[in-house]
Amino acid sequence: MRAKIPVAVLGATGTVGQKFVRLLAEHPWFEIAALAASDQSAGRPYGEVVRWREPVPLPGRLAGMTIARSTPPLPGRIAFSALDADVAQDIEQGFARCGAFVVTNTRIHRMDPDVPLMIPEINAGHLGLIERQRAARGWPGAVLANPNCSTAGLALALAPLHTAFGVEKAFVTTLQAVSGAGYPGIPSLDILGNVIPFIGGEEEKMERETAKILGTVRDGAVEPAPIGLSVQCNRVATVDGHLETVSVGLRRRATPEEAVAAMREFRGPEIVRGLPSSPAAPVEVDLRPDRPQPRLDLERGNGMTVTVGRVRPCPLLDLRFVLLSHNTIRGAAGAAVQIGELLVAEGRVE
Amino acid sequence: MRAKIPVAVLGATGTVGQKFVRLLAEHPWFEIAALAASDQSAGRPYGEVVRWREPVPLPGRLAGMTIARSTPPLPGRIAFSALDADVAQDIEQGFARCGAFVVTNTRIHRMDPDVPLMIPEINAGHLGLIERQRAARGWPGAVLANPNCSTAGLALALAPLHTAFGVEKAFVTTLQAVSGAGYPGIPSLDILGNVIPFIGGEEEKMERETAKILGTVRDGAVEPAPIGLSVQCNRVATVDGHLETVSVGLRRRATPEEAVAAMREFRGPEIVRGLPSSPAAPVEVDLRPDRPQPRLDLERGNGMTVTVGRVRPCPLLDLRFVLLSHNTIRGAAGAAVQIGELLVAEGRVE
Amino acid sequence: MRAKIPVAVLGATGTVGQKFVRLLAEHPWFEIAALAASDQSAGRPYGEVVRWREPVPLPGRLAGMTIARSTPPLPGRIAFSALDADVAQDIEQGFARCGAFVVTNTRIHRMDPDVPLMIPEINAGHLGLIERQRAARGWPGAVLANPNCSTAGLALALAPLHTAFGVEKAFVTTLQAVSGAGYPGIPSLDILGNVIPFIGGEEEKMERETAKILGTVRDGAVEPAPIGLSVQCNRVATVDGHLETVSVGLRRRATPEEAVAAMREFRGPEIVRGLPSSPAAPVEVDLRPDRPQPRLDLERGNGMTVTVGRVRPCPLLDLRFVLLSHNTIRGAAGAAVQIGELLVAEGRVE
Amino acid sequence: MRAKIPVAVLGATGTVGQKFVRLLAEHPWFEIAALAASDQSAGRPYGEVVRWREPVPLPGRLAGMTIARSTPPLPGRIAFSALDADVAQDIEQGFARCGAFVVTNTRIHRMDPDVPLMIPEINAGHLGLIERQRAARGWPGAVLANPNCSTAGLALALAPLHTAFGVEKAFVTTLQAVSGAGYPGIPSLDILGNVIPFIGGEEEKMERETAKILGTVRDGAVEPAPIGLSVQCNRVATVDGHLETVSVGLRRRATPEEAVAAMREFRGPEIVRGLPSSPAAPVEVDLRPDRPQPRLDLERGNGMTVTVGRVRPCPLLDLRFVLLSHNTIRGAAGAAVQIGELLVAEGRVE
Repeated sequence: MRAKIPVAVLGATGTVGQKFVRLLAEHPWFEIAALAASDQSAGRPYGEVVRWREPVPLPGRLAGMTIARSTPPLPGRIAFSALDADVAQDIEQGFARCGAFVVTNTRIHRMDPDVPLMIPEINAGHLGLIERQRAARGWPGAVLANPNCSTAGLALALAPLHTAFGVEKAFVTTLQAVSGAGYPGIPSLDILGNVIPFIGGEEEKMERETAKILGTVRDGAVEPAPIGLSVQCNRVATVDGHLETVSVGLRRRATPEEAVAAMREFRGPEIVRGLPSSPAAPVEVDLRPDRPQPRLDLERGNGMTVTVGRVRPCPLLDLRFVLLSHNTIRGAAGAAVQIGELLVAEGRVE
Repeated sequence: MRAKIPVAVLGATGTVGQKFVRLLAEHPWFEIAALAASDQSAGRPYGEVVRWREPVPLPGRLAGMTIARSTPPLPGRIAFSALDADVAQDIEQGFARCGAFVVTNTRIHRMDPDVPLMIPEINAGHLGLIERQRAARGWPGAVLANPNCSTAGLALALAPLHTAFGVEKAFVTTLQAVSGAGYPGIPSLDILGNVIPFIGGEEEKMERETAKILGTVRDGAVEPAPIGLSVQCNRVATVDGHLETVSVGLRRRATPEEAVAAMREFRGPEIVRGLPSSPAAPVEVDLRPDRPQPRLDLERGNGMTVTVGRVRPCPLLDLRFVLLSHNTIRGAAGAAVQIGELLVAEGRVE
Repeated sequence: MRAKIPVAVLGATGTVGQKFVRLLAEHPWFEIAALAASDQSAGRPYGEVVRWREPVPLPGRLAGMTIARSTPPLPGRIAFSALDADVAQDIEQGFARCGAFVVTNTRIHRMDPDVPLMIPEINAGHLGLIERQRAARGWPGAVLANPNCSTAGLALALAPLHTAFGVEKAFVTTLQAVSGAGYPGIPSLDILGNVIPFIGGEEEKMERETAKILGTVRDGAVEPAPIGLSVQCNRVATVDGHLETVSVGLRRRATPEEAVAAMREFRGPEIVRGLPSSPAAPVEVDLRPDRPQPRLDLERGNGMTVTVGRVRPCPLLDLRFVLLSHNTIRGAAGAAVQIGELLVAEGRVE
Repeated sequence: MRAKIPVAVLGATGTVGQKFVRLLAEHPWFEIAALAASDQSAGRPYGEVVRWREPVPLPGRLAGMTIARSTPPLPGRIAFSALDADVAQDIEQGFARCGAFVVTNTRIHRMDPDVPLMIPEINAGHLGLIERQRAARGWPGAVLANPNCSTAGLALALAPLHTAFGVEKAFVTTLQAVSGAGYPGIPSLDILGNVIPFIGGEEEKMERETAKILGTVRDGAVEPAPIGLSVQCNRVATVDGHLETVSVGLRRRATPEEAVAAMREFRGPEIVRGLPSSPAAPVEVDLRPDRPQPRLDLERGNGMTVTVGRVRPCPLLDLRFVLLSHNTIRGAAGAAVQIGELLVAEGRVE
């Protein structure tokens, strides 16, 4: 049994930062060596500063850990970043410049041509982009990004269809949980008994990021998948779990049964299957007529499995279905941790 | 000032029945002459039997009215029906056979070729179908239907586009309130903090009914509008108000501004504009980026106005937008009352 | 028909400020002559600055009104204040010094010995305190306060019992709506599917304010009513409406029927009954076993009526009951407007 | 490692029945040998009949188990009963007559003088009542009951105070989750954005049962604890978790610190501490000002720990506090399973 690999968490006091802390606290490969936050918080014990909102107790060792300033270097070859977008760029690049692998949940670097935007089951090969990134930027470290919370579920559900039949286009409508907006996030007066049919920038993010994730690396750059997407985003009064309705047009026709089979067989490459955060099935299909539901299906695969239901013909395109994805695990902290695990499995971090 | 026209309410104790009672209690043209319900309730005072859930007091006169059995004849030339689908057919046909105009919210007769499925602003001319109905069935009365709660808003938002540009197809996803399922309806354990991505039969209803409502009467029959629809229905934790996202393909291209103009100019025929239940604008467009919202926009036009927002280009078709409609008023009782008013305005009921 | 009396609204853009604007927009006696807000907002049209959240449209005249700075003098003999507590003191005193009657919803002056804390039906006579206030402070105007949102309902339900039987003590637990915390107020992540058993300072406010409101003016000062109160406050996931359970001990025993009769007969003095905002009955008792409920009973008396239910014996004290009060109307803006009306009815403002 | 003890579940398809199945599926001592339900369900596979609502998958072995009729004998010395109250009496007595220990969540036998109403940490000694029960009724088996869902948390929080200082009386107001009403239970139209201040029979149950649980066995009968209780029950829009505010009067004065210490030291007898379902601490005290909260504190001790917060002086009695208890675990299935474990630990079942 080898020693655990020290890692740092940037932006450790926020909603996603807390999720990182929870996932890493009992991680089989990693151990938290540094918790960083804003200068006001630095120097104080994490347990005093954080407004801990996870429904499990904060481990005592971490409660007593002194918060570090968000400046490199910090202990740990990997820095998991939950920084706010408005401060993330300088801090994350600074850590990469000092040799860290920064796996970020922030949107800021996702569409940089030399930054891999990763869902390991889909595009583990995109990891190679960091060679170009390091060469171009002269960094000993690198920045890697996980996708937006509502992109992750969509990309995972489309990936097996894209591989098997080619996805030409899709109409998507999301019903997203409030945790996606962080804390304090959505005021309760805005969402109790209500729906907000708008999430700033979200539709564009999903349209762009999905094409990059499903794209192909050619000559050190990602060629986006030629998939047309039209997304409409809504906020609903759920706490966790983004549900999405999808109508999809395929390049090669497929029956619902064939689509279900493709989704169920989807596994990702061998090296990814063995990662601690990888679920047994990245996509599960539930054939009961009224599934998936956030309250019942969210915890599959410890929040890393996307649940698909209602796979049926579309009167206008090929297929329709509904998907559910855990927005703060598969769509944020869990996704980043899995990328960190891939760095270890590939021998880039030891 | 002429005397009020007596009307009956069938299924008066249920959710939609109560809404009928509330709308008719202060109606300028109608007065409630009979409240009918199941045999168990008949003979008892309405106020004792009904579990009144409207947030205004039940008028004393109606509380004291003895519930009638649901058998014709009852006082009133018009019978507004909120009957359950499983008992509606015989009862409604019985009343029509006895000379009543039955305006029904039940799904059971909606797709009958000789039953007008009406939204007066859109298809007041379909009223003529009842001549054929009466001839064919030999009834002195007639059955007329209002559409399903989620169809009403969609048809009203599409109608001005269809007239101006021709609607070829649309992808629709609904976020529907629990009142659409009646009482007791959706168990709270199923919907608190949750979404249910399935409403039995609803998608098919919307696809069929919209084409009939927007269709053309030819040779005494409705030729459905040639509009392709793909609908996905979801139940969310709102009390009232169905919100729908729409991506629409037009036969003649239109900019968002042209679409907004068409919606805003939409009024319906002169005779409909003067009906007491007709709102000043059947469709209002709100250009604020995060509207419409159920809690803020539902009461426009006393619940008879559909609010449209976020009209913008669609990456795959022509336009995208969001609509909100009051499911128990424009989508149920208010819709039926408005049809009853049209019968009066056209001189069919005096 | 006399001309309307011009009034100003301080803090006009917040939640309570908007409620003032809505109530005053169609008021029979008052008209809005000035809308004041922070310096950043001053000089811009109200309709552009305010994030209007009332479910009725903002009247065009007010949308176009230029926001004034919160410095006296402003047009209007009465200034209704919805200012934040941290800035209210200087501004409100400044307006009183300039001759305005400031009716404030802010907590800051409520317990000042020379400031009347008023619920007109209960303690219209406390208005006389302002003579002392003006003498002591040398102001031509005056400051008057309405109680905290959760105090108002409790005081109104206790007042008839106190008059008839003497209230000795009461145990109270509140279930308060999120609108009581203003906007943005309670984050949705804190309250969806949850209860927060704590509202800072609220319990102490209710205990203190109730005694003052029900107190007696003696020698120009309020002698608090000798009522022992133990209050526990909770925030629940309702939008509007504070519900409270009460166990009360009386100085003179009373049956539930006697208590109900006292509440139902309660009217307040003649001069208060005629105010536009005074409901026909300040307290209504609903004997149905499961009432009052926020969604069904909140709008009684246009939000100015407190609904009481479940009046029954207490195994430990005399009586138990449940009350419901509209926190942003009877507990905030409506309360202040009614006090303003009393100033007019008493001839202090013309 | 000894073989597991076979047990039966009566009423296995309902909400509490499913919770039994979930808790027993991985129980270290028990294994499910029979799943019984109504005659309509009998003979069919459990997985086909049950509308499984637990957020973890139903184990395949149980999904395939054929549902038995609810008639004795069934395999298993212990029968855990989640039967509806209207059918429970005959069935449960029938099983006891056939030799089974019936541990029931139903209210029907709780107040029978010879039926132990048990919370093992508090009154393990009440188990001796079954000798009298068997003698009086001539049964080889016995019926044992766990308390009502809202009683369990109250009794556990009061028990250490009662032991240390003597509880004289308490005023309690509950905020109860919808799962307490079973499925379909509370209609969503009744509870979304609402509070229902009434739960039929609940207040009386809590007042009676608490006194029995905290009572003393004398001469083969329970002498109820002389505690005066006044309870007011409310249903709020939470899924799981009953929160209660308590004002308590003690026979011997205690400071909040002394009360906290007594609660924290509370453990129950040695034999109970070792049961698989017994949490490390039956009562945890959280000193943060806004705790306990259902969404954050419910899962402590796998749902078997009651969380207490806000322990502070009461202006009218001695102490006030807030408690939170998991209504379907500590207040139902978990409670019954723990009683079953006690039967094993005491050697009554092998």
